[in-house]
Parts: sequence; C-alpha cells; structure tokens
Amino acid sequence: MSADQLLQTQADLRKRYDALCAAGLKLDLTRGKPAPDQLDLSEPLLSLPGPGHYLSSDGTDCRNYGGIKGLPGIRAIFGELLGTGPDRIIAQNNASLQIMHDLTVFALLRGTPDSERPWAQHDGPIKFLCPVPGYDRHFAIAEKYGIEMINVPMNPDGPDVARCAELVATDPAVKGMWVVPTYSNPTGYTVSEQVARELVAMPAAAPDFRIYWDNAYAVHTLIETAPEPLPILDLAAEAGNPNRVYVLGSTSKITFAGAGVAFLGSSQENLDWYCKQASIATIGPDKLNQLRHLQFFRDADGVRVHMARHRELLAPKFKLVLDILEDRLAASKIANWTQPEGGYFISLNVIDGTAARTVELAKEAGIALTAAGATFPYKNDPDDQNIRLAPTFPPIDELATAMDGVATCALLAATEKLLDRD
Amino acid sequence: MSADQLLQTQADLRKRYDALCAAGLKLDLTRGKPAPDQLDLSEPLLSLPGPGHYLSSDGTDCRNYGGIKGLPGIRAIFGELLGTGPDRIIAQNNASLQIMHDLTVFALLRGTPDSERPWAQHDGPIKFLCPVPGYDRHFAIAEKYGIEMINVPMNPDGPDVARCAELVATDPAVKGMWVVPTYSNPTGYTVSEQVARELVAMPAAAPDFRIYWDNAYAVHTLIETAPEPLPILDLAAEAGNPNRVYVLGSTSKITFAGAGVAFLGSSQENLDWYCKQASIATIGPDKLNQLRHLQFFRDADGVRVHMARHRELLAPKFKLVLDILEDRLAASKIANWTQPEGGYFISLNVIDGTAARTVELAKEAGIALTAAGATFPYKNDPDDQNIRLAPTFPPIDELATAMDGVATCALLAATEKLLDRD
Repeated sequence: MSADQLLQTQADLRKRYDALCAAGLKLDLTRGKPAPDQLDLSEPLLSLPGPGHYLSSDGTDCRNYGGIKGLPGIRAIFGELLGTGPDRIIAQNNASLQIMHDLTVFALLRGTPDSERPWAQHDGPIKFLCPVPGYDRHFAIAEKYGIEMINVPMNPDGPDVARCAELVATDPAVKGMWVVPTYSNPTGYTVSEQVARELVAMPAAAPDFRIYWDNAYAVHTLIETAPEPLPILDLAAEAGNPNRVYVLGSTSKITFAGAGVAFLGSSQENLDWYCKQASIATIGPDKLNQLRHLQFFRDADGVRVHMARHRELLAPKFKLVLDILEDRLAASKIANWTQPEGGYFISLNVIDGTAARTVELAKEAGIALTAAGATFPYKNDPDDQNIRLAPTFPPIDELATAMDGVATCALLAATEKLLDRD
Repeated sequence: MSADQLLQTQADLRKRYDALCAAGLKLDLTRGKPAPDQLDLSEPLLSLPGPGHYLSSDGTDCRNYGGIKGLPGIRAIFGELLGTGPDRIIAQNNASLQIMHDLTVFALLRGTPDSERPWAQHDGPIKFLCPVPGYDRHFAIAEKYGIEMINVPMNPDGPDVARCAELVATDPAVKGMWVVPTYSNPTGYTVSEQVARELVAMPAAAPDFRIYWDNAYAVHTLIETAPEPLPILDLAAEAGNPNRVYVLGSTSKITFAGAGVAFLGSSQENLDWYCKQASIATIGPDKLNQLRHLQFFRDADGVRVHMARHRELLAPKFKLVLDILEDRLAASKIANWTQPEGGYFISLNVIDGTAARTVELAKEAGIALTAAGATFPYKNDPDDQNIRLAPTFPPIDELATAMDGVATCALLAATEKLLDRD
C-alpha cells in the first residue's frame, strides 16, 4: 500500500473510530469471568446441601472443624478430571490461586521436601520460568515475592522445552515454572504429551525445581470431545521426578467463580508437606461447600454434562469474535490470532509496537481491554504486540460491538505506525 | 495428711481408677468444638441463600469473582459485634487463623506499612509476646516461622501489662503479641479496659509492633449480658498507635465451625495493605457464604439471639464441669480452676509437676485430654500444671463421666507426687 493509500485508509478508519467514540459505549472485555447465564447453570447449588444434609459418605459432619484434605468424594471426581487419580489430590477453599500462593510462600519461608534451605535464603533471587504470553496472576505472585521471571516462548504444543531444559539444567536458582497445560491463558494452546514428558524429565540443577501445572481449563472445551488429561504425576514419577509437579484446578469457571472448590494434586510427599504447612493456617477447608458440589455433580460425568451446557453458551461467543477478526483483519495482514478449542481467551497479536496504542484507542471509545503487556512478566511485552481478548462475560450483542470496535482500533493503530515508520 | 493417710487415699483412688479403666471408655475433651446440637441451631444455612438469591444489597453478583473486602452487610454486623464499626473491618473465608497466618507471612516476606524491612530480614529472630496459658494454634504459627516466643502471665484482667510494656519498650525484635481479649482460651479471662488502654499505648521499640487481638469469643457468653466489645481501634488511634491492632473474629463457633465467615478489623492503612497483599493470592472470598450468613442473621441482634440459644446448650455443661471439680477437688486443695462466664474452655491447674501425669492416666482410661503443655509456647508448661478442659463437644452424660474420671486422675497423680516428694 502506498503512503497515499495508507492516508486514505487512515482517514476512513478515523471516521469509523469517531463514530465509535460518539456512540458512548461502556463495554468490558478485560477479564475471564463467566457470564450470568453461565452462573445460572449452577442454580441448584444455591439451596444445597439442603436441610438435614451435612454428613459426607464417610460420616464426617461437614459443619464442624477438621479434614484438611477435603472430602474424598469431591477429590475422586476431580482426581479423574485432572488426571491425578483419587488419592493424590486434595480439595481446599475457593481459590486455586491461593494454593499456588501458599505453595510458594511455604517454600520461601520453610523450603520444600527437596530443598536444602528455604527459597528465601537462597544466595540471590530465585527464578521462575514464564511461558509467554501467560497468566498475569501467576506473574504477580512471583513479582510480589521478588522471584525473578524469565520469559520462555509458549508454542502451540506447549512451552519451548529446549529453552526450558537449558535454563533448568544450568541454573540452580531456577526453582519453578508456570504452565497452563490445557487451553492456556491467553493462547488456548494445549501442552502435548511429548512436551509434557520432556518437562517432567529434564534434568534440573535445583533438586527442588517445581512445575505449577495450573490445569484451570481442563474441562472447558469448546468442541465436542475434550482432551484427556495427561497423567502428569505418573509421567513425572516414571521420569524419576515424583515431586516435581503441582497440579492445580478449581470449579471457579465450572460452578461459581467466587464460591467454588479448588484442588491441589501432587505426590504423596508433597501433599503431606503442604497439609502440614497448611494446618498451621487453618483447621480445614469449607467442607459444606465441597458437599454441595458433590451433591450437584455426583460424578465426573456430571461435570462433563455440565460443561457441555457451558459450551453451548460460549461457543457462539468465540465464533463471533473469530468471525469479526477474520472479517475485519484478515485481509490487511496487520494481525494474527489464536483459534482456541477451549478455555477463556483469544490471544491477538497486532503489529509490533501497536498493542498499547490499540488498547488506548479502545479505552477512549469506551471499550475496556486487558492492559497491553499484562500477559507478560513485569507487564512488559517486549514487542508491544499481544492483546488478550476475553469473550465470555459480555452479552453477545455487546461483544459484537466491542470486537468490531477493537478491530477498528487495531487497524487505526497500524496505520499510525506504518505512516510513522515511513 | 500423713504418709499413711496418703497411701490409704492413693489405694482408694487406685481402685476407683482401675474401675474407670475397666469401663472401656472412649471420651474426648481435647478440642473446643461445637456439639452437633449447637450446629443444628444454624440448620437454615444449609439451604440458603436459596434459588434466585445471589445479589447483595449493593447489586453485587455474589456468584462471580471479586470483592476482596467482602460484603458490606456482613461487615456491618460484625463491625458492631467486634467494636470496629462497619468500615474498619473486612470479611474473608472460613478461618480467622488463616488471616492471622497471612498477616504474619506478609509481614515476614514484605513488611507491614510501618516496617523498615520485612520481618524475615531482621537481624536475628523476631519475637512475639505470648500470654500464658494461651491458644496453641497461635503459638504454632510463631513456632513454624521461627518467631521466638516470650511467655507473659495472663491475669484475670488481661496480660501482665507491666511485663509487656518493659519487653516491648526495650527490644526492637518484639514485633507482635497474641491476645484473646474476651473469655480467653483457656482461662476465660477478659481484658479490662484499663489493661487494653495500656497495651495500645505502651511505647514500642519496634515501630511495626502489632497486637493480634483475637476476639474469637466476643459474643460467646454464658451469662445473660455479654460484655460490650472494647473500641480497641479507637483506643489505639487515640494513643497515637492507629496501626498497632489487628482485630480478628469469625462465625466458626457461632454457625458452622468448618464453614463460617472470618473477619479482620484494623486501621484503614492496615486493611489497604492486607487487601493489596491478599489480592495476590485470591480474587476474593466466598461471597455466597457471606450472603448466606447475612440472610440468616439479618443484623447484630440476630447474632445475639442466636448466641442465647448456644448459651442454653452450653451453660449446663460448664456448670456440670465446675460442680464436679468443686465436688471432687475442692476439699483436697490439689487444684484450682477458672470459672469462666463465656468462651469454650476451663483452665485447670493441678499440683506442679502432675499435669502430664494426669493427662497420661486419663488417656489410659480412655479419656482424651488436650496434651499437657499445649497451652504454652513450644508445648512447654514450665510448671507442668495446666490442663485445658473443653466441655462443649461431648454429650452431657459423657461429659460427667469424663470429668469425674479426670478428677480421679488428678487426685491419683497428686498422691504419686506427694508420696514421691516425701
């Protein structure tokens, strides 16, 4: 396109953008929140467990203190869905993020079962590998506690395992790694069995190297058949690293985002260690909420049927966003994006150096996007190109308006950049 | 009593003890757990909030993410009951112990708003003052994280404030202090306004000295009129130490011990700091459980009426224990005990050097008591005299059997000691 053509295109886009601004929108694509109609799917939970129902199948009075590991019934269901089996998983309160935070804090102050000393007493800062783009709340835990973050590319089959292996093998300060193995945030990529095997087998300079295997979207499929969860704990044990992996999950985006049940799967040694530490902080998790969920789901198939209902609500929203991206941005080649088969996000890459400007333009037009850079450690996207789109929460008509607006903003930012470059 | 008389008494007690053992009891007086009939008082919670009820009065969808401070309605109720007012209190998940743990961990790793550096980076171990006898789970948090504990006497009007003031004024390593201000665990003592004023006003060598004001039994009265909560945050602010006090409380022993709501009250600066740290670990507490409790109580008077029902169930159990202690132990003068007007425990002091033996004898007779020493830091009762009695959980007939057995064990241990001494 010549400079003149570009100027004309920009003028057209500017008109379209001015009209967008004049519409006085107030739309929000920032966070991966379930929409109210998704929450309605779990309506029965609001009156469970019901009068007289407070005993679990093993006779535990769920109203009273105790039971740090959570109810066996709910652990069995999510042990199946997260690939840990029923015994190597425990059920906690409402946030898997809290578990990840506490695992980190316990290691910092006390050390893991494989640590020579607490992580906080390491000479110099410890380090975590961060597949990018990734989940901002993972990065926030590391940043808050002074853990140095190292970017590694997130590929369609998982983290760049050669790069990971090199860093982990040579640097004993590398103590951890974040991974969202299924329908990753924000790319939607799923870790292949081959990559998983390499991640759990790669030699580590630190004997207490840990992979936070945050399987938040294990059952959140947008297609008919969800992927089987990898038996990651078995793979790690077979590779001679039984304590390497923490499996995380929760019902936050299955039932109620604020009032679900979170899970930790790991080796027996790691679970014993976690429970011993956690017992200092609590006498036990909310077992009534676990009983409520157990009554609601009954078994793993109950969860699968429930997730199919989510799919009916979400698949049209994802299709709409992808259609608009295709329609508005494909021809110009100023952007590429992922086509996830599950999860909560679409990852949009615009021309280098225009992500922040696109987000700024959208904001001025009343469309809130996740801040540019948020998908990278230290909020620093080195290429200023990645934008996380969260299609789940807005009603579908608002979503269409918002996405069309985002496309206009991305195109306008691209013309600014290209003209500036010339 | 002559040695012969003592031997005869011991022989009688031994017969009585052998009969106790032969009865094959299996009774448990170990922990302060509500009994099932107390839990039944909160039966309606099992089906709340109910179909279609998920919005709080300010329009928040309690099913979804967010709201780190908790629901305003439930904060207002417990702000009244804990003496903080509605604005200087937040509502969290099910365990105030978790809040105390996290406050400590955040201070260790990041420092409080008044800290020059994180507590974990202090030269040498930091220290907490521990009124004794006290609550074992407080001591466990300190012990786990290497915080040195210093015993201070717990008097009927509160911690020995002269001793506290001396330690806090002179040692900048003294960063914290545990207090259970109302019906303290295990003594049942309540801190007087005078002592409270001195605790919040005493000069501290450490600018980030903190009092963990764990008002767990604020409303758990066994008499008609509960004490008004001290406006401890106001007292601290008036004394020029607005950030000194963390007020803790929960509904664990009001509704469901495993599935209640916990609270933190403090200055605005401390609450902002806590929320900022906690936001790294969670997107927010379980608001549906808060809504459920709000619907159940409606207001602070709802809690007071509810606690009167607990009192009807608990007062007879406490009276029974005190009657048995009086009947069996008063004449011999081998023990003294507290006469609490509320809370969950009776503190029994036996002859120096016989607490562990009493607990051992009881255990052999099938009566589980809290381990001797548990009410002291490092599980070390220097006089081996204190036994914590927890009358709430057992049915009243079992309680009578158990307490009569405990009295026999205490007397038998005393004769052993006295004969050994001669």
